[in-house]
Amino acid sequence: MGLAEQYLLPFLNNHWIEVVASCILIYFANLFLERKGTNSSKVPVNEAMTNKSLPSRSRGTQNVIKKGGVGDDDEEEEEASNLVEPLWPDDLQHVPYPHIKLAPEESLRRSNEFYELMNKRRSVRFFSSDPVPREVIDNLIRTAGTAPSGAHTEPWTFVAVGDQEIKKEIRAIVEAEEEINYSKRMGSQWVNDLKGLRTTWVKEYLTEAAWIILVFKQTYGILPDGRKRNHYYHEISTALAGGILLSAIQNAGLVTLTSTPLNCGPQLRTLLNRSSNEKMMLLLPVGYPRHDATVPDLKRKPLDEIMAVV
Amino acid sequence: MGLAEQYLLPFLNNHWIEVVASCILIYFANLFLERKGTNSSKVPVNEAMTNKSLPSRSRGTQNVIKKGGVGDDDEEEEEASNLVEPLWPDDLQHVPYPHIKLAPEESLRRSNEFYELMNKRRSVRFFSSDPVPREVIDNLIRTAGTAPSGAHTEPWTFVAVGDQEIKKEIRAIVEAEEEINYSKRMGSQWVNDLKGLRTTWVKEYLTEAAWIILVFKQTYGILPDGRKRNHYYHEISTALAGGILLSAIQNAGLVTLTSTPLNCGPQLRTLLNRSSNEKMMLLLPVGYPRHDATVPDLKRKPLDEIMAVV
Repeated sequence: MGLAEQYLLPFLNNHWIEVVASCILIYFANLFLERKGTNSSKVPVNEAMTNKSLPSRSRGTQNVIKKGGVGDDDEEEEEASNLVEPLWPDDLQHVPYPHIKLAPEESLRRSNEFYELMNKRRSVRFFSSDPVPREVIDNLIRTAGTAPSGAHTEPWTFVAVGDQEIKKEIRAIVEAEEEINYSKRMGSQWVNDLKGLRTTWVKEYLTEAAWIILVFKQTYGILPDGRKRNHYYHEISTALAGGILLSAIQNAGLVTLTSTPLNCGPQLRTLLNRSSNEKMMLLLPVGYPRHDATVPDLKRKPLDEIMAVV
Repeated sequence: MGLAEQYLLPFLNNHWIEVVASCILIYFANLFLERKGTNSSKVPVNEAMTNKSLPSRSRGTQNVIKKGGVGDDDEEEEEASNLVEPLWPDDLQHVPYPHIKLAPEESLRRSNEFYELMNKRRSVRFFSSDPVPREVIDNLIRTAGTAPSGAHTEPWTFVAVGDQEIKKEIRAIVEAEEEINYSKRMGSQWVNDLKGLRTTWVKEYLTEAAWIILVFKQTYGILPDGRKRNHYYHEISTALAGGILLSAIQNAGLVTLTSTPLNCGPQLRTLLNRSSNEKMMLLLPVGYPRHDATVPDLKRKPLDEIMAVV
């Protein structure tokens, strides 16, 4: 005689009603807890960009509108869908787009030239401490601010750090977290994949480079009356601004090291007095390269490996 | 006498052991189901970039390494953490970084010039059908491919569509989904916020522009033996490449409209025969502007609203 027949079946026979009742009880308790938001960290946050199907209005509302696009944190968006004044008046003027039409040969020449310039870009870890004028940094950030954004919300903040003491504090925060990242969080595959590039958790460049530019996305806007304004697609918009910033840095003869220090965001936000709607996306030391700077001898993929033509 | 005293307390008194047993049973069933991955869509996918705390190794491994960075889909990453050959040999050569040091005045002049160029960029919805040479498109994509990427994995694919029939099919897919987006998925706040910009679900520019460039992120790489290779930070890396692409388009005297069509990704991936590790991030019509193109009369935020200096 099996265990099931000996114990389980008689038990269920006598007590099935209690078992069913408990199940129902737990099911509703679970539902209730989810509504209270205690499970909110389990909700997927970037549905909009991964293009999963959005079969119903409610799902679309929950994941796309309420959250304002890609990569939001859930809790802070909860009230964002209260209707506020439209961003632009209905009768916003539309004006001629001023442009001079280039000949195709001129487009070709310019596209070649820009490729040659950008192809010299490398992530550099060795900076000279030569000063970079504040006006140059202003221009770089002005340029990044020309990026397109969802409904023209311009959901970004750039913090330029030139103060040596603050740079030291940033370095201390990043090095402490990076040591844990390398030794515990990243795991052996990631650490092995980086070994040839000779990156470590020691980041001298954070105190050597003339400036550090930190790029924050604004996950929502704040209206004068304190209500929240949706920032559609703030994640991709701010990242595109970051790409334009990299172009501007390269064009100005400066170098940077594109970094996204894992787990440092909240501490850096506090250090730099940023508001709770601002989330760090990129940390870029910016300056002139040291005369003896080296880079790993990497090649880029050939065009046919990154491009398909239809 | 309350309901609790009349029914609940006697019930619990007689049957508490069954209730506790059921709870334990359901708890373990739940755990088991989560391990099986049936709940995987609830796992947060962009922890790395939102910088939530990662207290333990296992959480770091689950969310960052296994998923290869930001914005992955969960299900397809499950085996990605099996150890594979490191990306680069340990003894990868490091070579001098070739550069000519610019004088600060020269950096300033160039940064000004580039700002003036990029500040003329606008999202344009009216394209001339004048052809754009294939060589120009090649150069634009070559330039985008100079972007930095996590561990230099170059996790991107650019699909350039010049064929008029395929452009028509893309337009049909996008317009069908956008009509549903505007009428059902986006909700009234979003639709109101766009009204002044006069965007609709009708996208003539998709068949008017000489080219459409679609930017796909590769959520993982595929090794010759079929195993998966982690693509760290593929989301932000590909978006940065997108920003550089926008700079290159503007520099070549061309225009585009930066779009992230909601819900069209899977259909476009199928239409263009892309592999399952490729996810659409951006769809960019590229060409010369129509002579009578108009743009909404928007201003950009002044520098002090997007920049802080420390």
